[in-house]
Amino acid sequence: MKHIAESTVRRLSLYLLFLEEFEERGLDTISSTELAARGGTTPTQVRKDLSFFGSFGKRGLGYPVAELASRIREILGIEREWRVVIIGAGKIGLALAQYRGFSQRGFQVRAVYDSDPAKIGTRSDGFEIRALDSLTSDAREEPVDIAVLAVPASAVQRVADLVVDAGVRAILNFAPHQLKVPPHVAVKTVNMAMELEGLSFVLTNHDD
Amino acid sequence: MKHIAESTVRRLSLYLLFLEEFEERGLDTISSTELAARGGTTPTQVRKDLSFFGSFGKRGLGYPVAELASRIREILGIEREWRVVIIGAGKIGLALAQYRGFSQRGFQVRAVYDSDPAKIGTRSDGFEIRALDSLTSDAREEPVDIAVLAVPASAVQRVADLVVDAGVRAILNFAPHQLKVPPHVAVKTVNMAMELEGLSFVLTNHDD
Repeated sequence: MKHIAESTVRRLSLYLLFLEEFEERGLDTISSTELAARGGTTPTQVRKDLSFFGSFGKRGLGYPVAELASRIREILGIEREWRVVIIGAGKIGLALAQYRGFSQRGFQVRAVYDSDPAKIGTRSDGFEIRALDSLTSDAREEPVDIAVLAVPASAVQRVADLVVDAGVRAILNFAPHQLKVPPHVAVKTVNMAMELEGLSFVLTNHDD
Repeated sequence: MKHIAESTVRRLSLYLLFLEEFEERGLDTISSTELAARGGTTPTQVRKDLSFFGSFGKRGLGYPVAELASRIREILGIEREWRVVIIGAGKIGLALAQYRGFSQRGFQVRAVYDSDPAKIGTRSDGFEIRALDSLTSDAREEPVDIAVLAVPASAVQRVADLVVDAGVRAILNFAPHQLKVPPHVAVKTVNMAMELEGLSFVLTNHDD
């Protein structure tokens, strides 16, 4: 498969969100113009994004909503289930464990881990907090696809190493630290403060 | 000021993260090569990003760490404090209210709002949950710079309208919904499921 830019993948996720809204509203077809308007992009960009993955729709007739949604789910790899573990039973970790948007997309949170003895063995919203030490043996019984790291920046590289040793090939990192991982492991970092900095930049440099 | 791409602003945030690490380790200067290696980009890109904002460092001597960090903080608008409110006292909202990364960057969470009568008036980790109805009058007394929306997708457009009416000019949206706001309002949307989709895409399309 050709290299697909991360920004293209993000737009596919967005298109899927819109297509599902259109499906709920009972619409059968959608034009690239409408998709573009919702996604804050241009019709040309929409056509280019979708042409990567084969031909959809007929010129002038628009895209078939259900078929395009299904195809994008396939491209994104969310027609199947993924086993997810959360590392870090702090507020962010526990909030993520409960996040319904994950299971709606086929991301099944299987367990929450922590290294704090005071937390291990306790229950939170249906999850028993497991000892981080047991991750490797747990993953041998039931492989883990994706690990979500909600631990302090000072601990996150050590935790990432452990997760990679346990055979996990994808990491979603919430700590403000750039992880070093082997090339076969995919990492995405979400930095809440960085999102706010994007806004403070706009507020600061806005021409009133 | 010239138009700066969002991706450039994100890289500035990343450079700042690294510069602060270098500062802690007592380093005075840093080369574009080192900054690039940490940020997963090229030295040329680093020089290009920084040249937008004036000249830093001397050829062959690298960038002065403290000066560059301070200048980036200034560019990002985080040398000052920003007043932030969280709308939605669910798990995500309350986790964000506690997130220390915000205050470290000058983002001060001033209040948490909700529209659920069972939550209004209760306290959570030092925050009294206020009635969403009172946001407009509260903001008249103490203007709000940024609103973080942690409410369901079905309610988020209505909440955004209310927030904009209250004079807020920047919104960080956690609901999977593309908001419509007037042009003077900046919006960023964080979608946790979309981040995982970026990973499932890589896992699915990875050549083993």
